[in-house]
Amino acid sequence: MIRFTTAGESHGRALLAILEGVPAGLPLAAEDVGRDLARRMRGYGRGARMQIEADQAQLLSGVRAGETIGSPIALLIENRDWANWEDVMAPGAREDAPRRRLTRPRPGHADLAGALKYDRADARDVLERASARETAARVAAGAVCRRLLAVFGVEIGSHVVELGGVVARRAPLPSPLNDAADGSPVRCLVAQAEPAMIARIDAARDAGDTVGGVAEIVARGVVVGLGSHVAWDRRLDGRLAGALMSIPAVKGVEIGLGFGAAALPGSEAHDAIERAAQEGGHTTGGFSRRTNRAGGLEGGMTTGEPLILRAAMKPIATLMRPLDSVDLDTGRPAKAQSERSDVTAVPAMGVIAEAMTAIVLAGAYVEKFGGDAVAEMRRNFDGYLAQLRARQALWEPLG
Amino acid sequence: MIRFTTAGESHGRALLAILEGVPAGLPLAAEDVGRDLARRMRGYGRGARMQIEADQAQLLSGVRAGETIGSPIALLIENRDWANWEDVMAPGAREDAPRRRLTRPRPGHADLAGALKYDRADARDVLERASARETAARVAAGAVCRRLLAVFGVEIGSHVVELGGVVARRAPLPSPLNDAADGSPVRCLVAQAEPAMIARIDAARDAGDTVGGVAEIVARGVVVGLGSHVAWDRRLDGRLAGALMSIPAVKGVEIGLGFGAAALPGSEAHDAIERAAQEGGHTTGGFSRRTNRAGGLEGGMTTGEPLILRAAMKPIATLMRPLDSVDLDTGRPAKAQSERSDVTAVPAMGVIAEAMTAIVLAGAYVEKFGGDAVAEMRRNFDGYLAQLRARQALWEPLG
Amino acid sequence: MIRFTTAGESHGRALLAILEGVPAGLPLAAEDVGRDLARRMRGYGRGARMQIEADQAQLLSGVRAGETIGSPIALLIENRDWANWEDVMAPGAREDAPRRRLTRPRPGHADLAGALKYDRADARDVLERASARETAARVAAGAVCRRLLAVFGVEIGSHVVELGGVVARRAPLPSPLNDAADGSPVRCLVAQAEPAMIARIDAARDAGDTVGGVAEIVARGVVVGLGSHVAWDRRLDGRLAGALMSIPAVKGVEIGLGFGAAALPGSEAHDAIERAAQEGGHTTGGFSRRTNRAGGLEGGMTTGEPLILRAAMKPIATLMRPLDSVDLDTGRPAKAQSERSDVTAVPAMGVIAEAMTAIVLAGAYVEKFGGDAVAEMRRNFDGYLAQLRARQALWEPLG
Amino acid sequence: MIRFTTAGESHGRALLAILEGVPAGLPLAAEDVGRDLARRMRGYGRGARMQIEADQAQLLSGVRAGETIGSPIALLIENRDWANWEDVMAPGAREDAPRRRLTRPRPGHADLAGALKYDRADARDVLERASARETAARVAAGAVCRRLLAVFGVEIGSHVVELGGVVARRAPLPSPLNDAADGSPVRCLVAQAEPAMIARIDAARDAGDTVGGVAEIVARGVVVGLGSHVAWDRRLDGRLAGALMSIPAVKGVEIGLGFGAAALPGSEAHDAIERAAQEGGHTTGGFSRRTNRAGGLEGGMTTGEPLILRAAMKPIATLMRPLDSVDLDTGRPAKAQSERSDVTAVPAMGVIAEAMTAIVLAGAYVEKFGGDAVAEMRRNFDGYLAQLRARQALWEPLG
Repeated sequence: MIRFTTAGESHGRALLAILEGVPAGLPLAAEDVGRDLARRMRGYGRGARMQIEADQAQLLSGVRAGETIGSPIALLIENRDWANWEDVMAPGAREDAPRRRLTRPRPGHADLAGALKYDRADARDVLERASARETAARVAAGAVCRRLLAVFGVEIGSHVVELGGVVARRAPLPSPLNDAADGSPVRCLVAQAEPAMIARIDAARDAGDTVGGVAEIVARGVVVGLGSHVAWDRRLDGRLAGALMSIPAVKGVEIGLGFGAAALPGSEAHDAIERAAQEGGHTTGGFSRRTNRAGGLEGGMTTGEPLILRAAMKPIATLMRPLDSVDLDTGRPAKAQSERSDVTAVPAMGVIAEAMTAIVLAGAYVEKFGGDAVAEMRRNFDGYLAQLRARQALWEPLG
Repeated sequence: MIRFTTAGESHGRALLAILEGVPAGLPLAAEDVGRDLARRMRGYGRGARMQIEADQAQLLSGVRAGETIGSPIALLIENRDWANWEDVMAPGAREDAPRRRLTRPRPGHADLAGALKYDRADARDVLERASARETAARVAAGAVCRRLLAVFGVEIGSHVVELGGVVARRAPLPSPLNDAADGSPVRCLVAQAEPAMIARIDAARDAGDTVGGVAEIVARGVVVGLGSHVAWDRRLDGRLAGALMSIPAVKGVEIGLGFGAAALPGSEAHDAIERAAQEGGHTTGGFSRRTNRAGGLEGGMTTGEPLILRAAMKPIATLMRPLDSVDLDTGRPAKAQSERSDVTAVPAMGVIAEAMTAIVLAGAYVEKFGGDAVAEMRRNFDGYLAQLRARQALWEPLG
Repeated sequence: MIRFTTAGESHGRALLAILEGVPAGLPLAAEDVGRDLARRMRGYGRGARMQIEADQAQLLSGVRAGETIGSPIALLIENRDWANWEDVMAPGAREDAPRRRLTRPRPGHADLAGALKYDRADARDVLERASARETAARVAAGAVCRRLLAVFGVEIGSHVVELGGVVARRAPLPSPLNDAADGSPVRCLVAQAEPAMIARIDAARDAGDTVGGVAEIVARGVVVGLGSHVAWDRRLDGRLAGALMSIPAVKGVEIGLGFGAAALPGSEAHDAIERAAQEGGHTTGGFSRRTNRAGGLEGGMTTGEPLILRAAMKPIATLMRPLDSVDLDTGRPAKAQSERSDVTAVPAMGVIAEAMTAIVLAGAYVEKFGGDAVAEMRRNFDGYLAQLRARQALWEPLG
Repeated sequence: MIRFTTAGESHGRALLAILEGVPAGLPLAAEDVGRDLARRMRGYGRGARMQIEADQAQLLSGVRAGETIGSPIALLIENRDWANWEDVMAPGAREDAPRRRLTRPRPGHADLAGALKYDRADARDVLERASARETAARVAAGAVCRRLLAVFGVEIGSHVVELGGVVARRAPLPSPLNDAADGSPVRCLVAQAEPAMIARIDAARDAGDTVGGVAEIVARGVVVGLGSHVAWDRRLDGRLAGALMSIPAVKGVEIGLGFGAAALPGSEAHDAIERAAQEGGHTTGGFSRRTNRAGGLEGGMTTGEPLILRAAMKPIATLMRPLDSVDLDTGRPAKAQSERSDVTAVPAMGVIAEAMTAIVLAGAYVEKFGGDAVAEMRRNFDGYLAQLRARQALWEPLG
């Protein structure tokens, strides 16, 4: 079982993740994590903070001499801006400390609901944790899981398929996906769409506005039979959807054709089953599909086809031209307060969604294959592949 | 903490749910459960089985003299068809038992992935549990949770907003929603769309095909501050999405504007905060929203506005004119096997989604308000409402 | 991951267990479960109810044609006495239903704390679930886990080492342990102690009193390396202790020397490590121990030596000569109410403790070896044994 | 729900705890945590390391301006010795790094089982996490929970009742317990026993040996009705036993009379129920007990009487005069390797057990009373006390 927990405030000392259940013997370096942290910070439309950050993860535990040892992996990411915020965010009580209170909650953010729920007079106590900054810790944990998944031939990437209303889906997708996507400032694979997306971002910035979009996450090389149909909370589709919808500002999640499947007849919505060509089918049990409308998940289990997920992100809730709100202290109408913010974070959201996907998938591999050392887990995995092959050995040879 | 577990095969003896963590003192009758079970079985486009079933829930435990007593509530739904299937599905080993083996897996169903994962020669061992019949147990558990939520003024309904490609959203929605929706054979609120939807179902039936659609789930009266922004797996948006995506055949989930929010500028995607009119705002802390684009969830917490969720269902995977498949025994191309099935189950899916929503929400109420008896939980709830009001008492009176 | 949930009241319709996560392909018959249910009902000192019961488990789901299929296993045990209690315990509300109220709580039972916690006027609403009758469901689930463990060569037994103050430990223990223990009416292996124990029970019965005792649970053939030192809640010692202490009336749990270890110097409290003789050490990595004071657990992990656990049970709280109490309605002193009861249940408690041990161990095997079919799990297990042997291959041959 | 996770190696950079689910508005300072960390390090019989450490906790998150804000609380304790161990324990790969390998596993420690389970050539990869140093993180998290419990009038203390075979129970216990216990170098309340315990420690040190013992943990002011009888894993006795047995080197756990209860007749093993005197019974529902043999737990629930737990610790496994072992590389007999160690850690174990008790109890309070702010939780608690009083209002007045 893989578990992960994060802690840390946006302008606090540091962000933290503890990732637990990773087998021993996995090669791991701080740079493996740093690479994804850097990818999360890029993207056209980010504000000034992204320059400040230059996030680096420290491996506080669980890794020794370049290898995991089976114990919990603690990842710490210092907030470089801490010196400027220490007096505001320090844990210690100090009468004269400046608060930078936020009392005019931003529509679309956690400010209002959080202040009421936790009975806080200062919504900063909420927004500091609700900030998307927290996702740096998720990306750090996800980077470790990505490293584990690579042992089993899984590769996870993402690209932006819609930004500020500009739609740009492309098929077939290049492989590895991120080599191509990371080259674009908006992580978009369709060259013609890129300038239009950038123009939307620029226009939004000029208008003091923000934009949202949709990222598609693709996991290739996933073996057939992860997740399960036997219980609602063992289904991998539900677990993945829950993980993606938990990303701040995500309001929709799709698998495969997603909402599009609702409008198609059954005869056009499923994926005919075929026998795999001689050279393929190692991880699909010898089968292949004519299409992949299911996005690699049937009955809550992986089919062995690429996992295709999409997450829709609403525009960032902090606008430079703020929305109407109410002052918590007086009950009077007021403009929402502003925090420094980005115009869009859709490219970054794709990277975060990769991380969440990696964490869920790594958990599913650990569940199916067990094992406390990477070599043991890999041996169990190979045994499963052999079991799949044994079934095919009874078949007539391919003509 | 509310936990729920289900068991049972589609043609086995019975389906079962154990619901745990419901406080004592909740009035509950088998009819409360039966009502939702009946709603699940209705809907134009269902096959012959729906007549057979006439599901009834037996309260095996946890309820005494018409009231919950705090212990786990076990709900049993017998399969009326058991007599016809006993020899096929009996737990006991019997050499000459007929198997009704399924070896030609249906694309879009759990058959293939499940048979490979669990190493079964007969995919019936998989489909019997993967069948949507399992959702009867979810609906039974959900009916109990709905009863609990009613204590707090929460009302959950659903309606079909798309079926077989016919789109029919309507606003404003009637209240109670289900009184209106249950009157339609396709659970659609737009009178003009109903005949078109029915026509699509008829056409699909004639073609040996199936259709999917989208249901919208609405929860009204939900108090502000359920769920939390503090941890990824405490966010209510993620939990709801995970619960809905775990319903068989659901491939997409949206909250509020959902995917539509991705295309709007920030200035049009959020919900301006206002002060509630004198007579309102009891459960929203004295605030109201000009719109409800967020679907009642901000920062992973409820805002007090109605919860608006949508779930997209792909067409049923069992077609009377079967899709291409491969025989598991021989590896030869073959048409997928057929099980008796429906043309569409979108109206039923809405009812199932209500149940999952009820289960998640009931869990969130139990977490926030604690309490082991309904009266205690209600007292804690009232205290929270008073706390919200106390904040407003400091405000200037409304002009 | 193995999960198990129970439901049911002592005089309700039935007891239920749902056991989830058992791999497919495990041979299982209702008789496998019935055998342990019968063992739980025996034992000198049981009251009249034990004759009534004659518990039988029905396999409602998860088993087909004599084999598990991977889905949740639902086990139902009907209460034979239901006809006599239906009017008292029926779920439906009926004005004139007899209540058999309990308002004079029994010291030592859940009556008082439960009535206060759940705010019940009738403590029957508590005691019906708190009754040790619930453990029948545990034993049923445990019997399935025992069946799974047998695939890996694990054998679990128990015996009574103390009853009513008569102490009777014996070493070495016979194998299989239960063949010997089940032959004794008090499940005691020391022939001389048996009559003394029986005499104590008889004396207690004559005095309207009850007696407690201690059972020792032994699991042989457990492989090295289950559980883990890496997290407090992954340690197997903690999980086993939690499971045993959750048995009604158990007030103490020990592993290996237990409390005795506290009084010994380090030089006499640990188990020197040796190289296993040529023919042994398959499941211990080639090592053996001169002693087994640790009871098979070091650092929260199994060592491969037999697991030795002891659970202490206080005397049954329902005395025929009742203790002083207070009437819940009036606040007046009163003698505690009586329910039909046994003089001792220590022999049964050992059987229940075997079940809890089996459930925890089965979970640990599933975690370490993964796998969705028994053959897959066994293959992974064999791979681990080979890995242990490979290490020894580098050693110098035994002289 | 309260969750807690720890990370960190004994000679790594730092130890970490993340505690999640603590309500907002709890006053908290680093000194609150430091106090317990210091208490953990004291005790006659500790080795040189205790001087090195001088543990201090940094509050990395979840606390602002002296108060919790509802988000996860991350506690970091730096290892002061890190400079001396950096080259051995650094996460980065370095060819020439010294390993200080451990290949001769210590009987009684996790070394052997862990090296086999995780397939490590160097048992240091195991012992670094298995070391009792990890309990510093538990104590830090426990200190926060203790602070929360104080809001509800709960006070947790411990004392040593047996050390190196010297038994010293005392009753009645002083209150607050720790004011007295912390004054003794062996945390023993019986003045006459103290010199004997110290003499045993000295003798063991001279002999290169170690000693164990038993600590008793007492929680006063706990309200009636925490935990539950309705499910095996909701019972508080099981949860407490699991938490205590998960402490390194603990081999036995008792509640109330514990193993002693097994030898008594029922008439002498339970606690007669009485009506509380006018001035008492606030947290017990108006009842009191003539005795407290149950140790404050009946039916898996608190009775409102003091919680009495005992944990038995075996002697430390690292002896200066090492035990027989086998070299992992060669399979040859060898003396076990030594790490710097203490002669006894029983006084510290009591402090750790207090922390585990506090964590479990805080979780039980959060479950029963819900609430996201301390004031809300307290209001719910007060409502429960009023509910208990309302019941008594119907009673005849005390004579």
